[in-house]
Parts: sequence; structure tokens; C-alpha cells
Amino acid sequence: MKLTMRLGVRSYDIILKRGVLSRVGQLTNLSRRVLVVSDEGVPQAYRDAILAQCGQGVSVVLPQGEGSKSIACFERLLNTMLEHDFTREDAVLALGGGVVGDLAGFAAACYMRGIAFINCPTTTLSQIDSSIGGKTAINLEGAKNTVGAFHQPCLVAIDPDTLDTLPPRHFANGLAEAIKAGVIADPDLFELFEKGDIKADIEEIICRSLVVKKNVVEKDERENNLRAMLNFGHTLGHAIESISGLGKLYHGECVALGMLPMTESPSVRRRLRTVYKMLGLPARIRYDGEALYEFIRHDKKMGAGGAITVVKAAKLGEVRLEKIPLEDLKTIIGEGIR
Amino acid sequence: MKLTMRLGVRSYDIILKRGVLSRVGQLTNLSRRVLVVSDEGVPQAYRDAILAQCGQGVSVVLPQGEGSKSIACFERLLNTMLEHDFTREDAVLALGGGVVGDLAGFAAACYMRGIAFINCPTTTLSQIDSSIGGKTAINLEGAKNTVGAFHQPCLVAIDPDTLDTLPPRHFANGLAEAIKAGVIADPDLFELFEKGDIKADIEEIICRSLVVKKNVVEKDERENNLRAMLNFGHTLGHAIESISGLGKLYHGECVALGMLPMTESPSVRRRLRTVYKMLGLPARIRYDGEALYEFIRHDKKMGAGGAITVVKAAKLGEVRLEKIPLEDLKTIIGEGIR
Repeated sequence: MKLTMRLGVRSYDIILKRGVLSRVGQLTNLSRRVLVVSDEGVPQAYRDAILAQCGQGVSVVLPQGEGSKSIACFERLLNTMLEHDFTREDAVLALGGGVVGDLAGFAAACYMRGIAFINCPTTTLSQIDSSIGGKTAINLEGAKNTVGAFHQPCLVAIDPDTLDTLPPRHFANGLAEAIKAGVIADPDLFELFEKGDIKADIEEIICRSLVVKKNVVEKDERENNLRAMLNFGHTLGHAIESISGLGKLYHGECVALGMLPMTESPSVRRRLRTVYKMLGLPARIRYDGEALYEFIRHDKKMGAGGAITVVKAAKLGEVRLEKIPLEDLKTIIGEGIR
Repeated sequence: MKLTMRLGVRSYDIILKRGVLSRVGQLTNLSRRVLVVSDEGVPQAYRDAILAQCGQGVSVVLPQGEGSKSIACFERLLNTMLEHDFTREDAVLALGGGVVGDLAGFAAACYMRGIAFINCPTTTLSQIDSSIGGKTAINLEGAKNTVGAFHQPCLVAIDPDTLDTLPPRHFANGLAEAIKAGVIADPDLFELFEKGDIKADIEEIICRSLVVKKNVVEKDERENNLRAMLNFGHTLGHAIESISGLGKLYHGECVALGMLPMTESPSVRRRLRTVYKMLGLPARIRYDGEALYEFIRHDKKMGAGGAITVVKAAKLGEVRLEKIPLEDLKTIIGEGIR
């Protein structure tokens, strides 16, 4: 299946197909220097499949986890390209999850002021969400995604076969972003989850999620307005992720939790929790509401009197951006997750 | 005098006016957090003038010289912004020469995926050339400008009064880029140099140079083609700068030397040398031609059989891009500088 992200001169194809990992070279030029970035969690067989198609492939395998989204790893990728005489005509290929894609994409954005970037996501999270849209980033001392660039890939090649080797918790983690896509714009997608045969429907789930995101990104590439809708569940999710210690709860798990208080309909909230339980996603969490509030206040760099824009869902497929006093967040936090 | 760089949503004004340094706050919003980046060579009075106009100014003073265009300084600027709770709505202001502008611009490009960048150049080089056009960069282990971004400023405020405190060699150094602008597109500008009253004509020299660059950048913002003309003298200049040790000869001095072999008309070459001598720019240099050739071959990441695109001037105001076998560069190198 092929989707095309239509962004003028920055347009690109998204190919979703079982086995595509061994055919990437037919879809884009790999007969050049290609920096293949993956992490220790990515099976060697996938790296071999990609490297076999590269004219001059250079492999960098990073430690697994959020810690690799650092200035140090960014510098490592850049120096590796320089040592191997990469030019403006060469490319970076990300093979892995969101961490690998964000870091590799940022290195591609900055090397020689931007070279080609190919994204081959291998996790549900990256296949469903992070591999398209052009956001790249690294973290600064625990502050998530503080440094980055908008740099669109020239190809996204999604091979659902790679999900077979993903640990179950990782598999469920990424589905949270698909549930989000269902809630904000595609009730039928949400109902696919309620049907409950995820493995059988995974290609449709990925595809429909990508369509939701693509439609938003095409209208607002640089998040001046509309794109903020994609952050449904993320303001709280991000805070939960940070105060519980980066990496302890996974990103998707935190987004799942973060969606609950922002869902206004009690019946939809119940339906969400039912789906979460079926998938093994957390449906409740004990937390310190004050700490959560303080984190958001500091993270959004605002005083107590500030206003914050949140995304709320009145019902399935109906979300809106709402600017509320930061104080109101305290009430909201109290309501939905415990 | 006001020029407008017309680049759609990325358009901005270039204000060239004596004393403008103390009026920047009237031209753009400084009532926010502003990271004021300068170096030890910038007089304290200029910093004070800018900081007095900032709502919440944060000053970073870097060591002088090319060494500051490093990953370490890049990280320092980013961490400073994070510590001071900079948001997407805040700004970076560069106050200094090309090094400060390139580094500060790159930090502005990457912090939160891009925040406002204000450029207040205080050297001839940056006022004449590097402050406009949106190229930002840092160096990787001696490899100049290997990492960077295209990130246009939202305002360029040029105060020629700041040139009065510039050491004479620095003053002459930047003029090389104006001579370049004259050769490639404005013979009258070149004749201003032959007239010889530089101090009296400096505003016209800056303005005309900016117009030449602006016209090219507006047609080819990201250097896909035409913009490469602005690199006249730079392929060799860059190599001379590097093999003689970064910082020993200044950038403009090397560009001046680099233009000579690329100037095909012997009479124009003579006129160039006459102007160089008058300004105190080098008109000849002893060098190892083989080392120069090898540097370019390695810098451009190509084997001996490769082809390289150079900019040649047939006469004043008439330049062209020419793809030549790398080997031919050996002959060219032998001709013009010794």
C-alpha cells in the first residue's frame, strides 16, 4: 500500500508492505554512501537485509533507549559521516523505533545543512506515528525533544513483518498512538480495537493511523495550529513520562493515560479503559498531582498565571484545541487517571 | 536604508543605518527572553546597548575565533536557553562577526525546532555578506561548516558605526566579499574600490554588496544552483584557509587570493591585485600546490577522476558555473596566485 505525503517539493511516499525491508533499494537510491542507524534492540537480520542493498553502507548501532537521543550520539553520527567522506548526495537511513528515527533524522537534517533521510521504522510506535511528519529531535539533559529540526524523509518504508519480533509490551505501547488517531479523527479505527483482533488487523490499523496524521501534517507541516491536535494526550502523557523517570513507563503508555482526563465523555472514557486493559496498557496510575502540575508549569516555561492550550475530545472523532488557565489543569488532573 | 529579503513567509528586513544598534527594539520584539550572543572581541558598550533594550536579556560571551564554531559552544547556547526557560516565542540575537552569527543562528535553528533569530553584525565581513541569506553552521574537527541549517533571521540590523572600532586588518578582510560581489554582478561597485575612498563610501559598498547577494538568494535560497555563484573565490580560498591553518590567514584574505586564478581576464586580475594592495589584502602567496589540490580532493570527498564545479569570471560582472575535471584544477592553481 502506498500513501503520498503531499508537501510540495518535500513530498514523499510511505510504503506499507510485508517484506519491504528487503526491497528498499528498489524504492530509493541506496547506491551511495548510506549511514544505517539502528540500536541494539534491532535484530541483526534486519541490518543485514538493509546493508546488503547499500552501495557503501556504514552501520552505527546505538545503545537502546531514550538515552541515545543525546548531543553525544548526534555528534557520533556526524563524525562517522565525516570520516567516511559523506557528501551532500549521500543519505542517512533509520532502522528502528522512534529514538533511532528522531536522532538519525536530526543528524540528516544538519549534516551539510541537510541530506537525504530514509526511514524504515520497525516498532508499532514508529510505524503508526513517529516515522512520518518530519519532526526530528534530541533531548537536552532530560528535557525531551528540546533540540531538533523539521526535516522530512524522502521515503518511509514500513514492514509490518518486523513487528513479529517486538516484545509484547513494546507492541502494545505503539498502539496507543493508533487509539489516539481513532479518537481524534477516525471512530471506525477505534472500533477496530474494540473488535479486538489486533494482529489480524494490524496493517489496517497502521494505515488508518498514518492517514489521520498525514491529513493533518499536509495542512500544517510546522505545527502552527492544526497539527497541535496530534498532541492529544501528550501534555499530560509527557509529564507522566518525565516524573515517573524517562523510560520507566513507555511513551505510548503515558499517552494512553494522558488521553483519559482530556476525554470529556464518560462513556468514551470507559471504552478507552476497556481497550487499554485488553491490550495490556495501563488504565490507572497513582501519582502526585501536585508534582505533575509543577512539571507542566516548568516544562511549558510559564508562571502560575499562564494559559495553556490543551486538546480535548468531546466524543469520538471530535476534538478541539482549548486555551485554559494553567490552574484549571489541576482540576483536570484530579479527575481522570486515578 | 531598508532592503527586504523576499522569501515568502520567511521574508525579512535588512536595516542599514548608523546608530541602529540602539534602536533594534523598535524594529523587532525584544520584550521577551533574548539570548544575546557575542564574543570577547565585541566592545562591552555594544552589548550594553542591546541588553538595555531587552525585556529579559541573557548574555553569552564566547572566546574569539573560529574555535567557537564547535559542538561544545552550540551545546552551551542550548543549555543556557533551557536553564533560562526559553520558549518557542523567545529569540536569539547575534552581536558580532561571522563566527558569532553562524553559531548563534544554528542554535536558534535547532532550539525547539527553530525560534526567532535577530542578526546584528558588527564586522565588515558579516555586514557585507554572512549576516544575510540564512546559512548557519558549525565546524566538525576542523572541517568547516560541515554541520548547520538554513534558518533565515527575522531581522538584520547593520550599524556601520561599529566598524570604527574594528582593527584595520579585520576591516579589510570583510571587504574581500564586497569585491567579490562587484566582480560577479556589479562592476560599478568594483570601481568604487578603484576610486579608493573606502571609509567615505562604506555604506554604499555594504548596501550594493547586500543587493547582489539578496538577488541571488531570493532566486535560490537553498543553493540548488544559482546561489553557488556566491562561492566565487571560495573553493580555493577555503582550501588556502585550511592548509595554512584555520585563523592564520583570515577568511576574506583567502577568498581574495582564491578569486585570482578564477579570473580569466589578465587585465581584471591586474586590477584586482591593485585594489588588494591598496586595501592591505594579500595579492600573492607561497603555497604547496600539491597540498592545496589534495585538500580540495579530500574536502570535496572525491576520487582523482571526479569533476568539480567552479565559478569563473570572464570579465567584470560576467561569471559562470563550470564543471571541470578535478585534474584541471592543478593547472589553474599553478597560474594565478604565486
